[in-house]
Amino acid sequence: MTATPTFSKGLEGVVAAQTKMSFIDGEKGILEYVGIPIGDLASHSTFEETVFFLWNGRLPKKSELAEFETSLRARYEIPKGVEELLNTFPKTAEPMHAIRTLVSSLGLHDPKPNAIDIPSIRDKALSILAQVPTLLAYFLQFRQGKQFIRPDKNMGLAENFLYMLNGKKPTAAMTKAMDVCLVLHADHGFNNSTFTARVLISTESDIYSAITGAIGSLRGPLHGGANEGVMRMLNQIPTVADCEKFIEDKLAKKDKIPGFGHRIYKAYDPRATHLKVLAKQLAQDTGNMPLFEKSTAIEAVMTREKAAKGIYPNVDFYSATTYHCIGLPLDLFTPSFVISRVGGWSAHCIEQLSDNRLFRPDADYTGPHNVAYTPIEKR
Amino acid sequence: MTATPTFSKGLEGVVAAQTKMSFIDGEKGILEYVGIPIGDLASHSTFEETVFFLWNGRLPKKSELAEFETSLRARYEIPKGVEELLNTFPKTAEPMHAIRTLVSSLGLHDPKPNAIDIPSIRDKALSILAQVPTLLAYFLQFRQGKQFIRPDKNMGLAENFLYMLNGKKPTAAMTKAMDVCLVLHADHGFNNSTFTARVLISTESDIYSAITGAIGSLRGPLHGGANEGVMRMLNQIPTVADCEKFIEDKLAKKDKIPGFGHRIYKAYDPRATHLKVLAKQLAQDTGNMPLFEKSTAIEAVMTREKAAKGIYPNVDFYSATTYHCIGLPLDLFTPSFVISRVGGWSAHCIEQLSDNRLFRPDADYTGPHNVAYTPIEKR
Repeated sequence: MTATPTFSKGLEGVVAAQTKMSFIDGEKGILEYVGIPIGDLASHSTFEETVFFLWNGRLPKKSELAEFETSLRARYEIPKGVEELLNTFPKTAEPMHAIRTLVSSLGLHDPKPNAIDIPSIRDKALSILAQVPTLLAYFLQFRQGKQFIRPDKNMGLAENFLYMLNGKKPTAAMTKAMDVCLVLHADHGFNNSTFTARVLISTESDIYSAITGAIGSLRGPLHGGANEGVMRMLNQIPTVADCEKFIEDKLAKKDKIPGFGHRIYKAYDPRATHLKVLAKQLAQDTGNMPLFEKSTAIEAVMTREKAAKGIYPNVDFYSATTYHCIGLPLDLFTPSFVISRVGGWSAHCIEQLSDNRLFRPDADYTGPHNVAYTPIEKR
Repeated sequence: MTATPTFSKGLEGVVAAQTKMSFIDGEKGILEYVGIPIGDLASHSTFEETVFFLWNGRLPKKSELAEFETSLRARYEIPKGVEELLNTFPKTAEPMHAIRTLVSSLGLHDPKPNAIDIPSIRDKALSILAQVPTLLAYFLQFRQGKQFIRPDKNMGLAENFLYMLNGKKPTAAMTKAMDVCLVLHADHGFNNSTFTARVLISTESDIYSAITGAIGSLRGPLHGGANEGVMRMLNQIPTVADCEKFIEDKLAKKDKIPGFGHRIYKAYDPRATHLKVLAKQLAQDTGNMPLFEKSTAIEAVMTREKAAKGIYPNVDFYSATTYHCIGLPLDLFTPSFVISRVGGWSAHCIEQLSDNRLFRPDADYTGPHNVAYTPIEKR
């Protein structure tokens, strides 16, 4: 074991690899994808374009984007065998366990699941990206005992996802909101699931394994599971007038407030800025203003109490309201995050494989040495 | 982002966390589990005892071991729903993709899959440990179109696994060989799959996600997939007399020789020492001496050429012969490795959760900044 003076729990502050994907300045509240500020992408780009951008390091020409979209839409439908597999699930299956198993099962139906040359990885990642929304919608319908609503190739990814969830074409505002959510969540440095994907693919394993592993990471309450915690909190508070007391009581008990604080950001999370605007508009359109007002009331208390300590709303805080207004069931919040991150995870797998080195850190062994094996009779 | 001077590709030489599980001195060729040299465990312990040892940090008393074994055996059978799910697989499914999907699906049938208090993790890990051999055997029978051979609770894990694979009670020598293989492979510092499991569970995700992710990592040719490469090489070489030329030709072309070299060991891998003895005995018993002799002939050439550079046989080299003699099909070598590592991965998940800190390293961003979003018409 190489002696080393650096030991930082959770690898905080330790550089794990180089990347050209996303840049975060947590002090200033800056997030860029391949150099473009997240706000510009949220305002002007689409999820499909953003994924092309992450996978290629440049924005697509008109014809390239059209080809990318056509190819993506052609892959919306899932293998019949995966439908059959879904039909064996218990109806009570937890959605993140379901989507992890379903994505894993896509690898069973790929005749060359282990190909990791870059063109193959892109090809397989495009299929996974196209099929995760379908898998989620089918899972929802399966547990409701309803017929599957088949994907519609005439729609972009966000619109088609909302269509499959609700069985009707979403409004332009809802489609735009879903699409912006997908753009905002696509990539974020070496967050745990992205790091998991990179560590995993560094064994020259396959894209199904990497994405399946990343989904397992995203499930964690300290990672992607956080937005569900925000929604549960909002549901617990009866009215806007109750917010202040609710939060003050929680703070007095030193409870964590879901949706606030981030290891990286010590300023306002730039994604939260956009989501707040989006959430307000959607709440107005869908008759959910009381929910939005509870959110801003909570933010006001938290800003008063905690902004001096660098604790601000994070990306999960206003995405909860947004997802609710879009019509997502609470337990599909985190699974929907998967759709977006498949774009980022795949980009990182491509980047990792382009200049790979197996992740194999050292451990600081703190146990005993040279212990005798005592025979069982003498223990 | 915190500025840091340390950047080591693949986190080589970087301490990722503390552990009391296994200690490796790669220079001296030492491996200890919780302080006991691996050779002593290989000679005196069993896989069940070793797993108890890793999970508890001490060897079990007689009554504790009996209880652990009884509890493990009571869990050999898999949920009926997982059998149904397996029956939807294409018969061509690659075994590692199959076992990853099957283990993931166990989480669908757990009414509380997300419980991560330590007693729950132990309980769920024990079930996964008990069921992976059954999943593998059923998968083998499924793709052969045969009836499932049901597990037998009167047998220990190694014996029962070989029984389920071959449909007949294995010899004592074969059971012992399988058991020693399981002991030797149970844990090995922060190898990639173990690190993956720790990174993943640090989000407070669940044991199904952690083990599923670790299986995906183990699939990689740079990790668990290596023993299959050894067997394919052995199959390529007609006779013992052809070994020298085969290896010299490969070395001249600067090809890697499967089963040689390890990032950590610059001495003889202590696990390989034991496997070599085991492989010889088994080869004699099963009429596979030509295979064993090819292995030693390859080792002789490699020692002559590479020992000065610290390149020795690693754990994969003699495990290939061992697995072949036990009657494992080539493409079940890596999946069988999973059985053993479930013991170690679970131990590391327990350890990680006992003093958890989310893994969230920094990235060294090397891309551009402040790039303008060019409208699509102008690209």
